[in-house]
Amino acid sequence: MGGDHAPGMVIDGLEIAAERHPTARFLLVGDETRLNLLLSKKRRARAACTVRHAPDVVSNDLKPTAALRMRQSSMRIAIDAVATNEASGVVSAGNTGALLTLAKIVIKTLPGLDRPAMAAIGPSARGDVVMLDLGANVQCDARNLVEFAVMGDVFARTVLGLTAPTIGLLNVGSEELKGDDTLRQAAEILRASHIGPQFHGFVEGHDIAAGTTDVVVTDGFTGNVALKTGEGALKLIGDLLRQVFSSGIAAKIAYLLARPGLDRLREWLDPRRYNGAVMVGLNGVVVKSHGGTDAKGFAHAVDVAMDMVVHRFNDHIREDLARIGLDKRTAPDKNGTPRLATA
Amino acid sequence: MGGDHAPGMVIDGLEIAAERHPTARFLLVGDETRLNLLLSKKRRARAACTVRHAPDVVSNDLKPTAALRMRQSSMRIAIDAVATNEASGVVSAGNTGALLTLAKIVIKTLPGLDRPAMAAIGPSARGDVVMLDLGANVQCDARNLVEFAVMGDVFARTVLGLTAPTIGLLNVGSEELKGDDTLRQAAEILRASHIGPQFHGFVEGHDIAAGTTDVVVTDGFTGNVALKTGEGALKLIGDLLRQVFSSGIAAKIAYLLARPGLDRLREWLDPRRYNGAVMVGLNGVVVKSHGGTDAKGFAHAVDVAMDMVVHRFNDHIREDLARIGLDKRTAPDKNGTPRLATA
Repeated sequence: MGGDHAPGMVIDGLEIAAERHPTARFLLVGDETRLNLLLSKKRRARAACTVRHAPDVVSNDLKPTAALRMRQSSMRIAIDAVATNEASGVVSAGNTGALLTLAKIVIKTLPGLDRPAMAAIGPSARGDVVMLDLGANVQCDARNLVEFAVMGDVFARTVLGLTAPTIGLLNVGSEELKGDDTLRQAAEILRASHIGPQFHGFVEGHDIAAGTTDVVVTDGFTGNVALKTGEGALKLIGDLLRQVFSSGIAAKIAYLLARPGLDRLREWLDPRRYNGAVMVGLNGVVVKSHGGTDAKGFAHAVDVAMDMVVHRFNDHIREDLARIGLDKRTAPDKNGTPRLATA
Repeated sequence: MGGDHAPGMVIDGLEIAAERHPTARFLLVGDETRLNLLLSKKRRARAACTVRHAPDVVSNDLKPTAALRMRQSSMRIAIDAVATNEASGVVSAGNTGALLTLAKIVIKTLPGLDRPAMAAIGPSARGDVVMLDLGANVQCDARNLVEFAVMGDVFARTVLGLTAPTIGLLNVGSEELKGDDTLRQAAEILRASHIGPQFHGFVEGHDIAAGTTDVVVTDGFTGNVALKTGEGALKLIGDLLRQVFSSGIAAKIAYLLARPGLDRLREWLDPRRYNGAVMVGLNGVVVKSHGGTDAKGFAHAVDVAMDMVVHRFNDHIREDLARIGLDKRTAPDKNGTPRLATA
């Protein structure tokens, strides 16, 4: 029920997703009457979905604490289904803060992990780039950054299909002495860890769009600002280009002539192609779709969730967190067998 | 002597600057023989310049501590001239870290100010935007952020010529409760201060390019990452557009047709037009030109320095720091007269 054009957009998105993932089954939570009516017009989505009624909706301006008290919201019931293992994951276009808080409290953090993070994929000159944290943790210590790097590595392997993704730690310079103690300590741990060979060292802001590394690790404050700054710069150029190509006859003809290339460029940068921020580090898959997206964007968020489920994202995270051994409870024993704590 | 194309580029830049600022006099510090030879071909620059010999040059990879020990470098002698009031300001395209360190130690921080900051101007959908700090202070407390806001306000008034620039504090959300204690405390002080009416509250990354406020205040870590991320995104689009317009005959014709608009756009985004990062908060004007710039860009850095000198940037900073009264030593007495401490 969340998002600007819900629930219609969600069901249109599921119609696309059901075709792409023929074996997937969707538990659709919300206003039963409206959902069934909308589903009646969608053959594939109808066959793939089970509807579960939820009387309440978490509105976009509801505080996370208020959302927590609302036990019969569509968001809560969907998250409960993940906590009870009825569903492998949840995709929502609703209130971000509420989704993060509910997911953290109900689905819970993976054993041995200090804090979950928000991750997303974006375009770069050298292919897709994974960035995290994007705002779940405004302040981070070295352990958090190292854990984000481990999860970013697994994310790039499972969702982008890379074999040995390169990893960069965002800093104000690429020299080893730059930044504060937290960053230098995190870099030191990463260099000595199992992902050491993939660790590129410090990267700077311009390295994100340049695609210097496949994964960019940073604290939630910097990541959130960097993501939105980059999006803002792209939007500015897009708006200015639209002005250029609508200013007079010659420019309009130019647009028609250059259209195939410009359309490819626009498609490549299409935010819908990158829709689906992932909350990594929970006992289940949680994907946040942009609230303003359309069916195509929502279907992409479902793709991301499916990739994570099918490629056993969380199993890999558990193994790799044990290998990095930041927490004694998760350190492998002398036979190399991970001893995972149960939360 | 600093910069990729120095000293030729500097003297070409001064030829432009000398025409724009006919009353300005330049103290040109560096290799006397080379400088005089270059000046002999430039009528205006020759008339406006006095050459002072410096046997040494601070190379781009020299550590700031090593630069400090080098007493006869062109950078040091130029900075000494500001410290002794022989010059009102210094413009350099050399080693950034060395320039910052030397300037801070030799020219010294303004009395009553905790820490200087790096500020620069960038393009936005609604005109030029001032952003600071861009990397001088990786960690900042509330007082630092408030002082940056005061200096950003003065910068926007003196260099951009705005009457009452709006000021935003960079955060991960625009709601009052977002961010950490430092940010909320800084916002509270700003709201109650003399620039309270200009204070817009929190802004997000996308607000920089949108031009939501004329001044964007942030810590040096976030500011540095945001600046470079935005530049990186613009560069990515620029490269992709070049590809689009060189892919086939139709695209090349399109480029010719749309060229006037595209050229205007490129000119508007030209990094040379924004060249000149300013170190604000010192007992003199210090402008850092990009090392890779050309004569046009260097002349722009000189423009920025001239604006700051002519419009008495530092006098306004002194007055406004006293008004904000963060430090007792700088608080105005009961007659409203600022009692400035002497460092």
